[in-house]
Amino acid sequence: MNKSIKVFAPGSVSNVGCGFDILGFAIDGIGDEMILRKNDSNKIHIKPIEGYENLSTVPTKNVAGVAIQALLDDLGSQQGFDIEIKKNIKPGSGIGSSSASASGAVVAVNELLGKPYSRMQLVDFAMQGEVAASGDAHADNAAPTVLGGFCIVRAYDPLDIIQIESPINLWCVVIHPQIEIKTKEARELLSTQVDLKKAIRQWGNVAGLISGLHSSDYNLIGRSLEDHIVEKQRKVLIPEFDNLKNAVMNAGALGCSISGSGPSVFALCEGENKAKDVNLAMNDVFSKTNIPFYIYSSQVSNNGVRIIEEI
Amino acid sequence: MNKSIKVFAPGSVSNVGCGFDILGFAIDGIGDEMILRKNDSNKIHIKPIEGYENLSTVPTKNVAGVAIQALLDDLGSQQGFDIEIKKNIKPGSGIGSSSASASGAVVAVNELLGKPYSRMQLVDFAMQGEVAASGDAHADNAAPTVLGGFCIVRAYDPLDIIQIESPINLWCVVIHPQIEIKTKEARELLSTQVDLKKAIRQWGNVAGLISGLHSSDYNLIGRSLEDHIVEKQRKVLIPEFDNLKNAVMNAGALGCSISGSGPSVFALCEGENKAKDVNLAMNDVFSKTNIPFYIYSSQVSNNGVRIIEEI
Repeated sequence: MNKSIKVFAPGSVSNVGCGFDILGFAIDGIGDEMILRKNDSNKIHIKPIEGYENLSTVPTKNVAGVAIQALLDDLGSQQGFDIEIKKNIKPGSGIGSSSASASGAVVAVNELLGKPYSRMQLVDFAMQGEVAASGDAHADNAAPTVLGGFCIVRAYDPLDIIQIESPINLWCVVIHPQIEIKTKEARELLSTQVDLKKAIRQWGNVAGLISGLHSSDYNLIGRSLEDHIVEKQRKVLIPEFDNLKNAVMNAGALGCSISGSGPSVFALCEGENKAKDVNLAMNDVFSKTNIPFYIYSSQVSNNGVRIIEEI
Repeated sequence: MNKSIKVFAPGSVSNVGCGFDILGFAIDGIGDEMILRKNDSNKIHIKPIEGYENLSTVPTKNVAGVAIQALLDDLGSQQGFDIEIKKNIKPGSGIGSSSASASGAVVAVNELLGKPYSRMQLVDFAMQGEVAASGDAHADNAAPTVLGGFCIVRAYDPLDIIQIESPINLWCVVIHPQIEIKTKEARELLSTQVDLKKAIRQWGNVAGLISGLHSSDYNLIGRSLEDHIVEKQRKVLIPEFDNLKNAVMNAGALGCSISGSGPSVFALCEGENKAKDVNLAMNDVFSKTNIPFYIYSSQVSNNGVRIIEEI
């Protein structure tokens, strides 16, 4: 049995336009790197996280620690692990930062223990880790981070996740303006009631998007990405949102919306060249502001957490 | 060029549980038979419809007449046709009666004129015919009737229809209690506002259903059929609805809900044997009432309007 493992846990985009709270996908250009080792105690020990010293290293308050504990509780076996996290996704970015750490942790521990669980089963533990960060159990980042591709979270009780392989030529460009939005704050912006007519348009688009993903119909994916309910309520939190969206659509993106609860904004594109154009367009808009930002481009990844090295 | 054509226009189930106003599929056990002939005038002439003498034969007030006229107007060519309709689907049944006549008419005329339009283009004309019946343009019956299979109506302006082939072993059983419900009346029962949380569950189910149809995952189709918004508001119009649903689910149906705006109720099943069991269960429930009823069983049909004979 391996004693040490290094994993890459990718970022992810949840909500995906019309798919508010039920859809997410994995990206590949950015993610956390984590090294986990079995130790000889029965305690989880998390090293201080470089650059993010305010993230708790107390296992019961850290998403990775909570997720691992959920797995061990289910297994009925207390064991100890040392955890190093190289965090490349800033917390509060809207691209699944806490989910990456929680997912990476449970995939790595599962590997170290000889794979008692399937990837699908691990989603539940990663999701429980996320509760430590947001106070709320959502699987729309955890599922794609663990499994890869697009994931539908159809229902919670019991958890029902459906994975869809991403069309081969589907690229994602994400801009992360370096301002923080709390998920809770973004959630409070939303009306608790929705106009039935708008809800119908939304689930028409959800139907179109899922069909487009299954049939690799890029234009259909693009037409279906529109969100009539959440985006206009939340975009006020994101500087330059309308300019950004106009610019990326003019540059040939299939669609564009808020990633998670923001502030990151994602665009989907057909092919690497379009992704490059969209990257430039995003860069143009934000270069004119004083807000620092990062842009990540990658194919939508059909891989979830990847094992880099086993020692 | 043919002078006369006989077509079969199938019934259809719209709404399909969670897919309210955006989804429908074609059935095969019941439908209208129509004979259309080019005549030497430039007028549309509809023969009195046997058994349904209260249905107007005035072309501007009959769904078939209105649909044909929409086609001719688009073509910019006035021509005359004689139309005989053998109506097997009772108006107000909730299984696409008006849609069948409108769809059969435009497919037949298109054939007689040498196919100037694709089937997809014909949906728009059939839908305009339906306005004559319900006062409202909906394509969730017209699209599957013309095209076959499952059809998503993603958007109206412009009309965006996505066809999905039905899984090969998917059967449908529909019971039609012989009471009439007006679509308008059923629509007025609905709240104009929806709880956001319920709307999210609904589009999660829509996503699951579309994914299940693409991947022929019968269990997923079944799990996803649930409707948290419309069914409970409308079921009050349908006698024995709860008993019926319990009985068909106990008999092994994948799912069950109201067909269109009722009073028909449909169940989806995996395979012919399950469909037989469900048919018996429906029969048991309604045999104990004084309400006359019909039950139709068939595979979900991947055919829309079929040409039976060209003379």
